[in-house]
Amino acid sequence: MPIPNKVRWMQDILPETHLYHTFLKKVFRHELRKNWFKRITTPVLEHKEVFTWALWEGTDIIDKEMYNLIDKKWRELVLKPESTAPIMRSYIENDLLSEPQPVFLYYVEPHFRYDRPQKGRFRQFFQLWAEIIWEQDPILDAQLIYIWYKVLNNIGLKWEFKVKINTIWSLKDRQKYLEELTNFYETKKHLLSEDALRKLETNPLRLLDTKIEDEIILAKEAPKMSKFLKKESKEHYTKVKEYLDLLWVEYEEDHTLVRGLDYYTHTVFEFVDNSGRSQDSFGWGWRYDLLSKKLWHKEEIPAVWMAFWMERLVDALRDKWILIKNKDKIDLYFIQLWDEAKKIVLPLTIEAREAWINTLSSLWTPSLKAQMKKANRLNARYVVMIWVMESKSWIYQVRDMQEWTQEEIKKDDLIEYIKSKVWKTSLDFYCPASDYIIN
Amino acid sequence: MPIPNKVRWMQDILPETHLYHTFLKKVFRHELRKNWFKRITTPVLEHKEVFTWALWEGTDIIDKEMYNLIDKKWRELVLKPESTAPIMRSYIENDLLSEPQPVFLYYVEPHFRYDRPQKGRFRQFFQLWAEIIWEQDPILDAQLIYIWYKVLNNIGLKWEFKVKINTIWSLKDRQKYLEELTNFYETKKHLLSEDALRKLETNPLRLLDTKIEDEIILAKEAPKMSKFLKKESKEHYTKVKEYLDLLWVEYEEDHTLVRGLDYYTHTVFEFVDNSGRSQDSFGWGWRYDLLSKKLWHKEEIPAVWMAFWMERLVDALRDKWILIKNKDKIDLYFIQLWDEAKKIVLPLTIEAREAWINTLSSLWTPSLKAQMKKANRLNARYVVMIWVMESKSWIYQVRDMQEWTQEEIKKDDLIEYIKSKVWKTSLDFYCPASDYIIN
Repeated sequence: MPIPNKVRWMQDILPETHLYHTFLKKVFRHELRKNWFKRITTPVLEHKEVFTWALWEGTDIIDKEMYNLIDKKWRELVLKPESTAPIMRSYIENDLLSEPQPVFLYYVEPHFRYDRPQKGRFRQFFQLWAEIIWEQDPILDAQLIYIWYKVLNNIGLKWEFKVKINTIWSLKDRQKYLEELTNFYETKKHLLSEDALRKLETNPLRLLDTKIEDEIILAKEAPKMSKFLKKESKEHYTKVKEYLDLLWVEYEEDHTLVRGLDYYTHTVFEFVDNSGRSQDSFGWGWRYDLLSKKLWHKEEIPAVWMAFWMERLVDALRDKWILIKNKDKIDLYFIQLWDEAKKIVLPLTIEAREAWINTLSSLWTPSLKAQMKKANRLNARYVVMIWVMESKSWIYQVRDMQEWTQEEIKKDDLIEYIKSKVWKTSLDFYCPASDYIIN
Repeated sequence: MPIPNKVRWMQDILPETHLYHTFLKKVFRHELRKNWFKRITTPVLEHKEVFTWALWEGTDIIDKEMYNLIDKKWRELVLKPESTAPIMRSYIENDLLSEPQPVFLYYVEPHFRYDRPQKGRFRQFFQLWAEIIWEQDPILDAQLIYIWYKVLNNIGLKWEFKVKINTIWSLKDRQKYLEELTNFYETKKHLLSEDALRKLETNPLRLLDTKIEDEIILAKEAPKMSKFLKKESKEHYTKVKEYLDLLWVEYEEDHTLVRGLDYYTHTVFEFVDNSGRSQDSFGWGWRYDLLSKKLWHKEEIPAVWMAFWMERLVDALRDKWILIKNKDKIDLYFIQLWDEAKKIVLPLTIEAREAWINTLSSLWTPSLKAQMKKANRLNARYVVMIWVMESKSWIYQVRDMQEWTQEEIKKDDLIEYIKSKVWKTSLDFYCPASDYIIN
């Protein structure tokens, strides 16, 4: 009988990958906190209505890609496929409207989509996510883009991506354009794939978003929304660009960059991976001023969001051979060869750790050779061996594994000796508790 | 039509609560990393077998408390109710056996239990979790207890808890004791509650774990396992205590501290809240040397784990009025009263942030009064207002909101002026990217 394995296309994130996750989360969090964003977490499970009310019927996400379950009271629950709708639900339900506005929120959350698996994409995937809720000012769109632009540059992906922007205005006002677009494609029906013909029926705007070469050419010829923009919308878009220029963000306008849902408004943007990796996007975002009315039917609460796919960033960092420091190096390693020696090693280990030295002790007691091998494999810098004699004499041999030398040190001097030997920078001074608690 | 609300007994973790979560995670992570623990994450969804094979049938968790779903291929999946089984699944499936042993793993994970809601308990709850896998040495049990003991003391809960320990040896060897225990309770059947009678049938050991007063008295009179311990088990338990003494951990032996599953072995321990809050435990752990054979049927892989309930720790910190520093204070706040002023404020805001000053700018343009009110509510220290004149003259009035004074500063001197005014400690020097990337 084999072991039950993990659910297909889900992932175990092992320590070596967590190095990257930790790094990305730190950079991301720090940048967002600096910009006044606060963290929020919503549950993994939501009522299905949170997503269906947002009018997603007719999209793949609602129709095919959700993990559904029925609870004991016959309520339909789903594992959240995304977070704009839950966050808006939470914003309204918890009355964040009574806080100073706009509200800046961020989160690092798993999302769940039961879709066709692809490289770098899992059915449970993590996203780095930020939203600004309540205000429609174009300066916010620009700021959000700037923050992500900076994050990508900071983590070492400069030159690996480009920023694409576009505007799709809002539903009511883009009707005229959609008519024009539909007319254009109606005359080209013989050139369209089955998928495209379906889009022509249900959501013509999505025709511009294609990966089929012939259709990409068509999309370039298709009528452009910019010609149909009314004053308010033009102004919003122009200002976004002005602010981006002011912040030295390089971007590219792309009128084929569209998103299909009818509560999306104004600015859409995408950070496109330009290295030719299989997934062509690190993340994207848009304004969605009309979502709140879908959920709440009461008030329009403008908002803008942007998210990165954690797994794609990790892949890109690895592809580019960007190495993350493993802070878990060992500067002091104890070997013990006798059961009684454990009682000496244990408090010494603790003491060394309290003195900020990265310390590990070998606990099990096979041969000295096996233990030295482990010390080598772990790349330990200084090794102290405690056997019967050492237990009694309080004088230890300290072996420098790098220089292949050995020195005799008294027990009481050991900690100071190691501290004098290892780099200051490799001591671990940080003490979160005293840093955080107000006395 | 009301807004769809959150799923009953699930929680939105709002920014104010995240302050505590962040703090707890930082202390916890730091302490564990120092002790050579590495982070792992397993998926939210697992095959149901991962839990049923671990022989949990007959427990409430399997029978009543799991969120189940069936996927498109008719596989039974569950939202993980705990993590020892998934971690062991992951350890075997990913061949962590080929790493240097023992493997030290930690995680901060949501777990899901569809049980009766209680105060401080949600159906999705977060646990701080640590495991040591592969080795049976009692020094590991003691180390794990010591780490958690230190974490609880560090976060400010000293005197708020006590550590209880016990040993339950392993299944085979505790049969004799279970017979004795059953005999004892058989003669007292008339004193037992319905729940207790059920335990007598299915799992007599759990009779000792009761909250009914009469049954607590019975449990104290019941035969004690310590009398039945064989040599190996006694030695393990004695050593755990010796090591705890060596590390100055205060603990209490409690022979009624038991856990019912048959793969648990040797040491069990619990951190009991002694403040009289409704939940009586911050967390617990035990050795579970026999789990791997339940899942794998091949090799016995000893392990020990311990976890805290995040929500209970947050409640305790709040009850005890332990305040966590909100690092998001604002030292510099820009008010703009003119659309063109935004173009001055935006780069200035960025520049100030690059200089590590905690800066926020008001973007929407109601009255000056409304903006000053917001600056006050956010407790901003220095406020700079930019109107038509300021946009042209490059000289700003900097208002000190604490001292109620005002100074005239040139634009180019502004950053240095603020830096000279605010405490060094409130500048935000940390730069995770350069701290982590190896050049």
